[in-house]
Amino acid sequence: MIKAGIIGATGYTGAELVRMLSVHPDVELTVITSRQYEGTPISDVYPALSERCELVCEAFDTKTFCDRVDIAFTALPHKIPMDIVPGLLEGGVRVVDLSADFRFRNVGQYEDWYQPHTAPEISEQAVYGLCELNRDEIRTARVVGNPGCYPTTILLALVPLLKAGIIKADGIISDSKSGVSGAGRGLSLGSHFCEANESFKAYKVDGHRHRPEIEEVLSAAHGADVEITFIPHLIPATRGMLSTIYCTLADGKTEEDARKALAETYDSSHFVRLREKGAVPDILHVQHTNFCDIGLASDPRSGRLVVMSAIDNLLKGASGQAVQNMNIMAGLDEKAGLY
Amino acid sequence: MIKAGIIGATGYTGAELVRMLSVHPDVELTVITSRQYEGTPISDVYPALSERCELVCEAFDTKTFCDRVDIAFTALPHKIPMDIVPGLLEGGVRVVDLSADFRFRNVGQYEDWYQPHTAPEISEQAVYGLCELNRDEIRTARVVGNPGCYPTTILLALVPLLKAGIIKADGIISDSKSGVSGAGRGLSLGSHFCEANESFKAYKVDGHRHRPEIEEVLSAAHGADVEITFIPHLIPATRGMLSTIYCTLADGKTEEDARKALAETYDSSHFVRLREKGAVPDILHVQHTNFCDIGLASDPRSGRLVVMSAIDNLLKGASGQAVQNMNIMAGLDEKAGLY
Amino acid sequence: MIKAGIIGATGYTGAELVRMLSVHPDVELTVITSRQYEGTPISDVYPALSERCELVCEAFDTKTFCDRVDIAFTALPHKIPMDIVPGLLEGGVRVVDLSADFRFRNVGQYEDWYQPHTAPEISEQAVYGLCELNRDEIRTARVVGNPGCYPTTILLALVPLLKAGIIKADGIISDSKSGVSGAGRGLSLGSHFCEANESFKAYKVDGHRHRPEIEEVLSAAHGADVEITFIPHLIPATRGMLSTIYCTLADGKTEEDARKALAETYDSSHFVRLREKGAVPDILHVQHTNFCDIGLASDPRSGRLVVMSAIDNLLKGASGQAVQNMNIMAGLDEKAGLY
Amino acid sequence: MIKAGIIGATGYTGAELVRMLSVHPDVELTVITSRQYEGTPISDVYPALSERCELVCEAFDTKTFCDRVDIAFTALPHKIPMDIVPGLLEGGVRVVDLSADFRFRNVGQYEDWYQPHTAPEISEQAVYGLCELNRDEIRTARVVGNPGCYPTTILLALVPLLKAGIIKADGIISDSKSGVSGAGRGLSLGSHFCEANESFKAYKVDGHRHRPEIEEVLSAAHGADVEITFIPHLIPATRGMLSTIYCTLADGKTEEDARKALAETYDSSHFVRLREKGAVPDILHVQHTNFCDIGLASDPRSGRLVVMSAIDNLLKGASGQAVQNMNIMAGLDEKAGLY
Repeated sequence: MIKAGIIGATGYTGAELVRMLSVHPDVELTVITSRQYEGTPISDVYPALSERCELVCEAFDTKTFCDRVDIAFTALPHKIPMDIVPGLLEGGVRVVDLSADFRFRNVGQYEDWYQPHTAPEISEQAVYGLCELNRDEIRTARVVGNPGCYPTTILLALVPLLKAGIIKADGIISDSKSGVSGAGRGLSLGSHFCEANESFKAYKVDGHRHRPEIEEVLSAAHGADVEITFIPHLIPATRGMLSTIYCTLADGKTEEDARKALAETYDSSHFVRLREKGAVPDILHVQHTNFCDIGLASDPRSGRLVVMSAIDNLLKGASGQAVQNMNIMAGLDEKAGLY
Repeated sequence: MIKAGIIGATGYTGAELVRMLSVHPDVELTVITSRQYEGTPISDVYPALSERCELVCEAFDTKTFCDRVDIAFTALPHKIPMDIVPGLLEGGVRVVDLSADFRFRNVGQYEDWYQPHTAPEISEQAVYGLCELNRDEIRTARVVGNPGCYPTTILLALVPLLKAGIIKADGIISDSKSGVSGAGRGLSLGSHFCEANESFKAYKVDGHRHRPEIEEVLSAAHGADVEITFIPHLIPATRGMLSTIYCTLADGKTEEDARKALAETYDSSHFVRLREKGAVPDILHVQHTNFCDIGLASDPRSGRLVVMSAIDNLLKGASGQAVQNMNIMAGLDEKAGLY
Repeated sequence: MIKAGIIGATGYTGAELVRMLSVHPDVELTVITSRQYEGTPISDVYPALSERCELVCEAFDTKTFCDRVDIAFTALPHKIPMDIVPGLLEGGVRVVDLSADFRFRNVGQYEDWYQPHTAPEISEQAVYGLCELNRDEIRTARVVGNPGCYPTTILLALVPLLKAGIIKADGIISDSKSGVSGAGRGLSLGSHFCEANESFKAYKVDGHRHRPEIEEVLSAAHGADVEITFIPHLIPATRGMLSTIYCTLADGKTEEDARKALAETYDSSHFVRLREKGAVPDILHVQHTNFCDIGLASDPRSGRLVVMSAIDNLLKGASGQAVQNMNIMAGLDEKAGLY
Repeated sequence: MIKAGIIGATGYTGAELVRMLSVHPDVELTVITSRQYEGTPISDVYPALSERCELVCEAFDTKTFCDRVDIAFTALPHKIPMDIVPGLLEGGVRVVDLSADFRFRNVGQYEDWYQPHTAPEISEQAVYGLCELNRDEIRTARVVGNPGCYPTTILLALVPLLKAGIIKADGIISDSKSGVSGAGRGLSLGSHFCEANESFKAYKVDGHRHRPEIEEVLSAAHGADVEITFIPHLIPATRGMLSTIYCTLADGKTEEDARKALAETYDSSHFVRLREKGAVPDILHVQHTNFCDIGLASDPRSGRLVVMSAIDNLLKGASGQAVQNMNIMAGLDEKAGLY
């Protein structure tokens, strides 16, 4: 049995980790921590977890944590993980970090959009945990930077197309939509029921921090800089995320070529489902699962390819992919515990 | 033209008042105040109101307020109105107060559930603004205590039945359900979209402050103490309120007698709609209106009468009824401005 | 491995069965049938099931079905199961029926509310599949009548209280609320998004067919006839059900006595969670699980006990409880496959 | 008083017309027709309309209809209006048609996407009822083709920009999102609550019939053919529509130029509200109103302009704009009856 611990267990992504790991067949969840809820049973914070997890939230202490844990999940606000992770590594613990702190190989990029990085050398060696595309590196990684939710939808859809030369690298637009849980459990007017219900709008139209993350991975896949236009929106639903991505087919390429490239890439990947011609992904089909559904359409007049990609933002977009990363790191069945 | 002002214009009930009064044919909205948003145009706080109301939120000052206003709406948290209203009256302004401060004739009851009252003599002379039942007193009132939302559903349904002796006064249960806007615009975990969406639960099961308000009016109607069991619930919808009220038919009385008593009471009342036999009120039918829909069912085996009563909690349950009260006070058409 | 088949796999309860049984550790799902979708892969009907279940819907044929199945789930409209089940039993197949056809020991009662029964002797010997209360009989049952959703909420809450004499048997009221999926996947104006969204209303106020089912079991528990008032409502949510039940404490009994009686009954029952004093069940806490959450409140003035009981109507209220029944019948861990 | 009639009053757009016209200060609603509900009071079909409109649905008969009506609203499925409208015109009645039958000047385009047109000469002379842009022609029109909902969002946003040469005419993409009411009141699996709730997906990705309507008007504004990519999506909300439109700024043009061009165009148009820099339209702000909110963002790296445009699909996208058209045709205040 792998011994796992969660640092920051009481946000939405932390709670999803608790839910999954507490019944994972190959994992024993040994520690959960929370500053805000120290001393409180997790089932008091999330009554849905009672009879499922009996753990009590602890304060985080590197030494006592590392003594009981093989793999740590850090489900914390950006900036905190880069202070904590070095100690975990010293303590012999491998890490799946759900924040942005270890997603960038180009630390300067991170610093432009977030803040100064206090553990840049770790970030440079960390592995970007997009499971289906980076499996081999993840297997042996000491630190996995678990991808952002928007990047997961866009990168799973576009990386194979760029690599195979099916689409042009310029002029890509992603019109993306997320359920409200993506904003977390913290209180804000935008997450107030009466403001989000029956609402639909764009946000962060002047630049969302997931854009540089997406561009770094697309650029690496393309072998040259890729810039995209990225506009996120808020769906009046709790969970789910859909990106509708507009790109231009390379000369002579067709929707069918795109379908083939994706099919080849994901043939043996359980969690990416390619929809057949004419079918569209729906967040309803992926909610409460770790699947990413990808569908295609094209506009012959303009030569545009439309790629639609849907996930559950809390699972494949966060905690589900984190568990999948742990499964890969630990040599388990990639699907273990991900029902 | 009546000159109206709103003290506390930026909560949900305040904003509804602005929305209605800014197009009311017989009213000029002259002042709106807000502590939090002093100096900010209301249309910045509520973009829905732009091109509808150009007013800027002011700090409240008794003198300058009274100079420009005939009737004031106080849409403030409990406790503040009792400090402000005496000054408004001295300034010659009539008041519709949307808080609980002036709903009780029995000030002791208020003090048991809220806090010490600093203007008890005003409260004792204020009129309870349940329009359909207290029209005559409202006409000449200087201060109207605008009813709570739950009380409005229950009292409009039960007072005529109690007065006509159709139902027994004991054993009444109201299982009531409210949209989330009833909790206001303030931030709380219970109003977080991800906690309220796809949720349904009871709350304040150990005693909600609307219960004494309901009981005072029922007792007055019955001529003796009436005690009810009252359990409120939260509906995953923005607006709307439904009370399902269980009572016992008096000996020899029938559902048809109840229907007749209600029909007679509300025959000439535009805003109370009695549903015919077999039809049920639905919050969908009253949303964005000032109507109260009442329906009846009965269980012949137990002699129980089931009364269902639906309103929009922000309109007939708050701001709509407040405007209706103003219309009555000012001798206008009761429906004016209430489309 | 138990071989299981589902007759009627394409309604909401059928699809939930497919979802669970396709990853159940001790079960092989061998056959699924559908008249409407014969020849269609279930993953075309429910794209959410792709990569999870590769089965194709078949027409139902008793012989070929029985050859491949140990336990059958009949997820069909009332009336069809009573024609099919005799053949299944002859074929040596045990049955969990999700319709009302085998819920009644008193077949006359069934016939009053549904239609003439064509297999009354089977119905009389069938076991009512309320797992926590009828475990022993279920273990050896050939036919289990899987309880209705409303009955599950009410009976799990009240049977222990009645048996222990904590509450009086008369005057019980259940104000119950269900998510829209309870009405099934068939098209109707009431299930149209624009009619159900932001809506809340009672329905079937003149008598819902779950009432006699509830009363039969309560009466058996009490040892004398019990009649209840039962008013169902529709919640604008997909899944979840809450019953708020009003009863009267027996002389000298308290809320604490009720809590003890429930705690003793469900002490070793994983799927019933008793909420502590002051906590209320929320459908959000049980969605996508097989749990039933029960909470208590009381009104000392009236001697009333308020019992709140929440489930996911598609799981503990239908398919989850059906799997639990199968687990018990097959001698498996009661929780197997019910994550 | 203008005498108005509605042909097809029982769909969602018909009901909205009834709601508005029954309290319109300058209009008497004299006739409503419905094939399905002939003889039924509209308030039985829509209980929300009781005490608001006492009319009973009639069968449509040209003669008796024309005798009582000055202006007709045809709120019917495509194809029916082209059979009915010629008779209305002969009867001296002016028409606002809410179907697509009279939206196209190029009848061949209509016939490519819908069906053969039986009144092409009327269609060629009809006026496209985009109020803010075609006011003068609408004033004297005998037949107004009321715009589609998606076209309204896109055309109000883009026509001024194209005319002023702020954006390039090629490469325009509209990623559009609509509330479920856009699909009408007819029953379909896609409008089933459990399929639409908590769902989000694209639809008609191979070509939606609003695209040629949009392109015809854009082409006329541009003076040359304009082709767009248009992908509609479904929002899990009853009402509201948002288009996020991606276009390319013409050489040397800026977001500020775009803002100025829109401001000049809509300066005296009450119902188009231009959001200031940084603010985004939200369907919540326009629900239950006739406003269209437009916001702008730009991506300096790519030279892209992002135009966001929000309406209530049933009001500015259908019945509200129809009433606005009637107001213009009848020389009334454009805002009359549109609160």
